[in-house]
Amino acid sequence: MKRNLYLNIQNRVEACQNFLDHFQHLQPQYEIIDTINSLNRITYEAIDAKLSVPSYNSCAMDGIAVISSHTILASENHPVVLHPQTDYVEVDTGDMIQDPYDAVIMAEDLIETDDGYKIIAPTHPFAHVRAIGEDIVTKEMVLPSHHKIRSIDIAVLLSTGNSQIKVIKKPTVAILPTGDEMVDYHEEIKDGRIMETNSWMFVNLIQEHGGEAVRYPILRDDLELIKRTLLKAVQESDLVIINAGSSAGRDDYTIHAISQLGKVFTHGVSIKPGKPVILGEVKGKPVIGLPGYPLSSYFTFDAFVVPLLKQMQQQKSNEENIITAKITKTLMSSFKYEEYVRVKLGKVNDEIIAAPLQRGAAATMSLVQADGFCVIPENSEGVNAHDLIKVHLLTDLNQIENTFVMIGSHDLLLDVINDQIKENSQNFYVSSTHVGSLSGLIALRKHESHCASTHLLDEKTGLYNTPIIKEMFTDEKMVLIKGVRRRQGLIVRKGNPDHIYTLKDCVHHRFINRQKGSGTRVLLDYQLKCQGISGEQIPGYDHEATTHMAVAVAVAKKNADVGMGIYSCAKALDLDFIDIAYEEYDFVTYENYLNLPFMKSFLEVLKSEKFHRKLDELGGYTYEEIGEIYHL
Amino acid sequence: MKRNLYLNIQNRVEACQNFLDHFQHLQPQYEIIDTINSLNRITYEAIDAKLSVPSYNSCAMDGIAVISSHTILASENHPVVLHPQTDYVEVDTGDMIQDPYDAVIMAEDLIETDDGYKIIAPTHPFAHVRAIGEDIVTKEMVLPSHHKIRSIDIAVLLSTGNSQIKVIKKPTVAILPTGDEMVDYHEEIKDGRIMETNSWMFVNLIQEHGGEAVRYPILRDDLELIKRTLLKAVQESDLVIINAGSSAGRDDYTIHAISQLGKVFTHGVSIKPGKPVILGEVKGKPVIGLPGYPLSSYFTFDAFVVPLLKQMQQQKSNEENIITAKITKTLMSSFKYEEYVRVKLGKVNDEIIAAPLQRGAAATMSLVQADGFCVIPENSEGVNAHDLIKVHLLTDLNQIENTFVMIGSHDLLLDVINDQIKENSQNFYVSSTHVGSLSGLIALRKHESHCASTHLLDEKTGLYNTPIIKEMFTDEKMVLIKGVRRRQGLIVRKGNPDHIYTLKDCVHHRFINRQKGSGTRVLLDYQLKCQGISGEQIPGYDHEATTHMAVAVAVAKKNADVGMGIYSCAKALDLDFIDIAYEEYDFVTYENYLNLPFMKSFLEVLKSEKFHRKLDELGGYTYEEIGEIYHL
Repeated sequence: MKRNLYLNIQNRVEACQNFLDHFQHLQPQYEIIDTINSLNRITYEAIDAKLSVPSYNSCAMDGIAVISSHTILASENHPVVLHPQTDYVEVDTGDMIQDPYDAVIMAEDLIETDDGYKIIAPTHPFAHVRAIGEDIVTKEMVLPSHHKIRSIDIAVLLSTGNSQIKVIKKPTVAILPTGDEMVDYHEEIKDGRIMETNSWMFVNLIQEHGGEAVRYPILRDDLELIKRTLLKAVQESDLVIINAGSSAGRDDYTIHAISQLGKVFTHGVSIKPGKPVILGEVKGKPVIGLPGYPLSSYFTFDAFVVPLLKQMQQQKSNEENIITAKITKTLMSSFKYEEYVRVKLGKVNDEIIAAPLQRGAAATMSLVQADGFCVIPENSEGVNAHDLIKVHLLTDLNQIENTFVMIGSHDLLLDVINDQIKENSQNFYVSSTHVGSLSGLIALRKHESHCASTHLLDEKTGLYNTPIIKEMFTDEKMVLIKGVRRRQGLIVRKGNPDHIYTLKDCVHHRFINRQKGSGTRVLLDYQLKCQGISGEQIPGYDHEATTHMAVAVAVAKKNADVGMGIYSCAKALDLDFIDIAYEEYDFVTYENYLNLPFMKSFLEVLKSEKFHRKLDELGGYTYEEIGEIYHL
Repeated sequence: MKRNLYLNIQNRVEACQNFLDHFQHLQPQYEIIDTINSLNRITYEAIDAKLSVPSYNSCAMDGIAVISSHTILASENHPVVLHPQTDYVEVDTGDMIQDPYDAVIMAEDLIETDDGYKIIAPTHPFAHVRAIGEDIVTKEMVLPSHHKIRSIDIAVLLSTGNSQIKVIKKPTVAILPTGDEMVDYHEEIKDGRIMETNSWMFVNLIQEHGGEAVRYPILRDDLELIKRTLLKAVQESDLVIINAGSSAGRDDYTIHAISQLGKVFTHGVSIKPGKPVILGEVKGKPVIGLPGYPLSSYFTFDAFVVPLLKQMQQQKSNEENIITAKITKTLMSSFKYEEYVRVKLGKVNDEIIAAPLQRGAAATMSLVQADGFCVIPENSEGVNAHDLIKVHLLTDLNQIENTFVMIGSHDLLLDVINDQIKENSQNFYVSSTHVGSLSGLIALRKHESHCASTHLLDEKTGLYNTPIIKEMFTDEKMVLIKGVRRRQGLIVRKGNPDHIYTLKDCVHHRFINRQKGSGTRVLLDYQLKCQGISGEQIPGYDHEATTHMAVAVAVAKKNADVGMGIYSCAKALDLDFIDIAYEEYDFVTYENYLNLPFMKSFLEVLKSEKFHRKLDELGGYTYEEIGEIYHL
């Protein structure tokens, strides 16, 4: 076993700046293209007008072109009659004004007579005439260098006689995916194989940042092959990305390939996710080794490839799309690493709230679900709950302001609600975060959400939800929006091969549990207590998952033999189910939130037949009272 | 002469809402495309995971996969030695964990020995293992309906087994340019002809808003031809735009074509520019007649086509990109019309300042130069100078915050400075507005700009700039940045056919003047006074232009015979020039602005050889002291 060592762990800003400085001399090339196809391209140099606009004296109104000196005597008491040809010609907007005519009178100011038009006021030279060059004169600058061309620019470029223009040539970026375990998305996936998807994300990111991507076929972990391909790539492209093999594992050849053919400036950067970045050079071309985890590759692309692409196109590295938000949880610093934490955002009571998502580099879905990310600096104390932090937006701010924030217990039906609200209205979005019933209510109390989904059993009364809400919200007017009754039970493999029929049977099998504070955990613990079983007796009682589906898939894939969850998840994965209890899965909100526009949209969905049909499909739900509102 | 009447002048919001409601039933179609090509497309329906991620229990670290029960006894005092195969296998991140192994120990925690690895702490099942479905489980939702796909989504779609997806089909938009006077951009432009450029702006705007544009060849003003083509277009497309002929002129056939083949809902909307809009329907398809002036067509496209395109793609009509800025001038309301006023933006002293540009519908350059626009409501009192107003951004806010705002006197060299600052630095932008020297100083005093360009002669002392600055800025520390000495004189046609040699000669010829408050006007009036000539003696003394180039082009194109201006403009248009005076064209700013980063960039340009070479090329400048700073 031979593992590489990181050459040096560098600070991100420093590593990036050194890298950019090293390639400062790479001046962009230009190409000449048709202006009509130049949207979003960057001007190579300032573009001057080749024609004046307008290119002749032109009529600014519908009416008549006149000789202004013939109108001087006109007044209300002494109207003047103008005769065709000798005094005027009819004109429409845009027509050329030719000698001897030098002014235009609007149609509205004319009185028709048998032998011409009567006017009651004089006009003067150039009245209602757009003089040559009024808009722009030949040789004046239309657009400066390094300007990103918009649709409106295209019209003006054409009208100033620039039908072709010099633009900065798109930098070409070669992407070399590597890895013995990698298969292409159209190939069959077998156990132990991983689908190569990063390269396609890069292809699209490169396109978004003005580059042209060339994706090479997946390379096996073979140093000579990687070196050969790298040499070819630096010849064919302006920049090369190798992914992955940038780490220090046994089959990580990127560092060797680059250092043997050229120079490595940086191996390892103190960011998380993303540490194993390589910044180097081969034959004068920049070569970047990006790590393999999708999140690491995304953030390192953003941190190193984007600034280089911008520099190569003479574009500013922008600091836009950063907003201030209140963080809901304390985030410890990773000390040695600057950390990128994904957050979900929502606007509650006029405050933008950022709820951190999973922190692992492998949690790709956390980036899809994220509305933005914040950066926790290295060597810092982290951030405290309720601190204001800077968030880099990944979605429109506008979307965030129209997002209905639901934090609480997980159920498959939340996905359906999310989708149906989106389908019914182009205006609202749903952000649902699954932290369990109790944490959901706490978030609602802290005004970090608009609504909590909950199924909490009060052991004393045997009632669901209402007792705990009344206990937690003593001063506020709250409402309970009825949701569904759902079947909770034991999820076991198809055919129940382990013959698990009761909670007692669980002591002989590998259990998978839900996290503390979740309604399902409360229910399980209540049932265990009733039956005199202690958690310690159950193998895997400490093995926690955060959603019903995660429990179901653990059983399906034999990571566990049994777990507690809802019927619909067992059904979705074709597992067997043993009923334990019915429970009330409801929604809680502040009374005054009932007027929020997306709350209305939410209630509409709850009551819709379409939603009920979907619940029947999922299975295990009854919903007699769904959407009913109880003021507590 | 037969002119149409507007059917009804409607309010924009109402007209648009009625139109959108009428086509509410047009549901989008879908198409199935390869996920790798789906950037910026809109999901047609919710997309579920077809595969769990990870699809097997996988190693989260480089190290060894172990049987956790074999590690239970390990401690610092009693290390356990693990043996290959019986106790462990070597693994790298991403490798599959297979029975009997159930946990991973990181390479960092291993001590190498002769017969295996020594460990000093136990591990537990699933330690450093990414369990099947940890990221997402089959059947969970990856993306909701109507979601715009980003690069990161593409990676996740692929990894969840969605290599093809259903997206909303792009609405196809037919563009029918019309007009006898129109020529294509690749054709020769003769006097009286206008280049057809709007359609190309539409093509690109449609692309930006997710549609697919089909531009038809330019149609002559022939009702039957327009009708035939319109019928073809509604069959081939989802939406048809006719441009122009939407007004009430003699050759405006759009209204007739639509009303004869279908229905007109709206003809005329109370917006300015843009009144002559037609909203109609032919064979169930929406048909929109847009006005011909580029600015009118831009704003009406934005007001009517964009919302319809969004509705057709189930996308929200967004109200994003609106900021608050302080307006520099009082803007009267047009009363009957809602008016779109273009503004230049800049951040001065932490306040975003909006300076209105020309208001005419024909001033296309004003939209290219604009950073945004504000809307002055109809039936309102307008806005007062220094009011805070809402501005719709046309550029990045970030760009505005890095913009060096120069307001003052015009010179061709400002374009060069603008371009060279842009070329030297990717970080700064220049916004220069030409209002004349005096207005420029007033703007600087009101903190509406960072710098004023000025050449104001003090009649008493015969000195340039310094006296008036001291008079206007009594309490502040100001600096004068030396610019150029430039030649001012009379601009006449090549060969001086009218034999104009002195100001006295101007009384016999058509003069073109500069606006009041401009340095050139002050100089002219001073010279006239010295020579005992009154303005009234000069024909065209009241015919004003706002830039030197506008004066030069008026002479070149025979709108006037003579005007006063700078040498470089005469040279640019190959005109003759009679020297009248040298003048000092300088820059003024507050002392503390010298530290602004773009001010440094500006001073660098002033002193650069590259800039001096360009001045020599333009001609008529000397610049011994350029860039020198005088504290006043």
